[in-house]
Amino acid sequence: MPLQTLAREMLPRVEAELQRIVHLARTPDTAELHAMLTYHMGWEGAGAGPEAQGKRIRPLLVLLSAGAALLRDRDADSLEGTEPRWLRALPAAAAVELLHNFSLIHDDIQDNSPLRRGRPTVWKQWGIAQAINAGDAMYTLAYTAMLPLGVVALDILQRTCLHLTQGQYLDISFEGRTAVTVDEYWAMIGGKTAALLAACTELGALAAGADERRRAAYREFGRHLGLAFQVQDDLLGIWGNPSLTGKSAASDLAAGKKSLPVLYGLAQGGAFAERWAEGPVSVDEAGVVAGMLAAEGAREFTQSQADGLTMKALGYLEEASPQGEAGAALGELANRLLGRAG
Amino acid sequence: MPLQTLAREMLPRVEAELQRIVHLARTPDTAELHAMLTYHMGWEGAGAGPEAQGKRIRPLLVLLSAGAALLRDRDADSLEGTEPRWLRALPAAAAVELLHNFSLIHDDIQDNSPLRRGRPTVWKQWGIAQAINAGDAMYTLAYTAMLPLGVVALDILQRTCLHLTQGQYLDISFEGRTAVTVDEYWAMIGGKTAALLAACTELGALAAGADERRRAAYREFGRHLGLAFQVQDDLLGIWGNPSLTGKSAASDLAAGKKSLPVLYGLAQGGAFAERWAEGPVSVDEAGVVAGMLAAEGAREFTQSQADGLTMKALGYLEEASPQGEAGAALGELANRLLGRAG
Repeated sequence: MPLQTLAREMLPRVEAELQRIVHLARTPDTAELHAMLTYHMGWEGAGAGPEAQGKRIRPLLVLLSAGAALLRDRDADSLEGTEPRWLRALPAAAAVELLHNFSLIHDDIQDNSPLRRGRPTVWKQWGIAQAINAGDAMYTLAYTAMLPLGVVALDILQRTCLHLTQGQYLDISFEGRTAVTVDEYWAMIGGKTAALLAACTELGALAAGADERRRAAYREFGRHLGLAFQVQDDLLGIWGNPSLTGKSAASDLAAGKKSLPVLYGLAQGGAFAERWAEGPVSVDEAGVVAGMLAAEGAREFTQSQADGLTMKALGYLEEASPQGEAGAALGELANRLLGRAG
Repeated sequence: MPLQTLAREMLPRVEAELQRIVHLARTPDTAELHAMLTYHMGWEGAGAGPEAQGKRIRPLLVLLSAGAALLRDRDADSLEGTEPRWLRALPAAAAVELLHNFSLIHDDIQDNSPLRRGRPTVWKQWGIAQAINAGDAMYTLAYTAMLPLGVVALDILQRTCLHLTQGQYLDISFEGRTAVTVDEYWAMIGGKTAALLAACTELGALAAGADERRRAAYREFGRHLGLAFQVQDDLLGIWGNPSLTGKSAASDLAAGKKSLPVLYGLAQGGAFAERWAEGPVSVDEAGVVAGMLAAEGAREFTQSQADGLTMKALGYLEEASPQGEAGAALGELANRLLGRAG
């Protein structure tokens, strides 16, 4: 309930700030470059609209963290008048969303994906050369957005970006390899999924003026939220209910994705590993192969990892001691992302 | 003479700082990502060595500008002991070189270039997906390198990056278009070539503690140096002496490059424009077409533009009033880049 109320207040501010920053790419000569960015953000072009914009989860995490951390700082009242106090984290909220969208533009090229949120990807529309460059521009704008928050925030941003590229390196390399270890999996999702969520919650706390100890609690909350979310997603990619996930059953198996259950199964060296080595799993066969994998303990293992990470995430959230409506909304968002009753 | 002496002192420091920063991309799991970066920088892999590293002109511009601006600030003596004072600009020197090399990695994908400095490009060695990501990592490290210089330097960096992507957008778009104006050409090289050189000289002056007025003189010196250099390069690409340029005569014409003389020629709507519209110019025909272009005044026009920009660059350099050995070396480097006796 507080989540919906606050999101309705926050998201229009986020969208306006994103549009203001993205507009900086526009000059009389570069209207088309600007159009690539506004198209990707879901504001312009065929199919534009809320569906094409994504849920803006990351900016929400930033602003809710800022709101939840702020109330506790009695001395952090420098914003005056009727402006909500989480507004001081708006530069970070815009920055993380721009960073996320830069990574999506490049991801779509790297994965050869023709569609994103139901629309042709930037590279499909403008070619690979322009799409690489549009991603670079979007990436630059993440730094532009963050500048008002100063060097510590920019330091978090660049470390997050480096971590992202390290995770992305691993993800791409997994595709071409037969042997990937569970340890490498953790390094991959640590960079590709968890680093950005860790940055969201830490940046929110930073903008709220939280001290290093509390910033660390927010950061670790975000990181474990990201890890737990990804492992949960891996579980749903094989054993999720198609009518809820919107994907076909065991779709990750048919896609050949080296998700956590698959890597666990491969490490067992049993019937699943033998079947996997024989070549791609067809959509028709995926259900049977999912059964083999479950029989070897992969489902149970993955579920226990997801549960453990969820507990850790909620433990760090408790340590962060989020306050007020924003704090309640932050807990609600976390539970929703973790697939728990909100 | 001072240029050679100072370069011999500066370049090893630049190389060591670059290696230190690039090493941050390396973790136990990401040794190969690090290898892509060290390969591109010319430090590792087949063909590594000075030839593969490039001339590091941009870091030299930063450090010489810092050295030349410093001597004039009597109160800028905060660095103690025997360390050279230009050393305070080292973070910027590393940052601009990393930024330049990020743009080369992505450029090579965008241009479909198999070779860079005589070696296979990163995308040729590791594929497009990994090369896009390696470029993103290199780009991130530019911000990492710059952090110690604070928000004003980071602000210059992000504005330069945005300008670069705007220039790159135009450059890519020119290829697919028949009509490109001379105005668009200025916007393109302003972003693609001149913005980074402007950042080099401004960042040097900034690190030296120069005030806004003098920083502006350094910046405009760098910008016009970049513009003049590019126009000069366009001239040599058509009428240069092959034994000096290392390219075949009129090679830009055979490559179909929309350089300044070509755009001037197209705007005349004469014999050259007619020939250009008929299709690609062969290597054998390039000399004759270069003659048509010269007869329509394109060579004279381009030369006068190069001369005018060179004069402006040297005028701003004078206004910047560079001091001491570094100042003399800066003038020497400028004259060398502009193809004048040093």
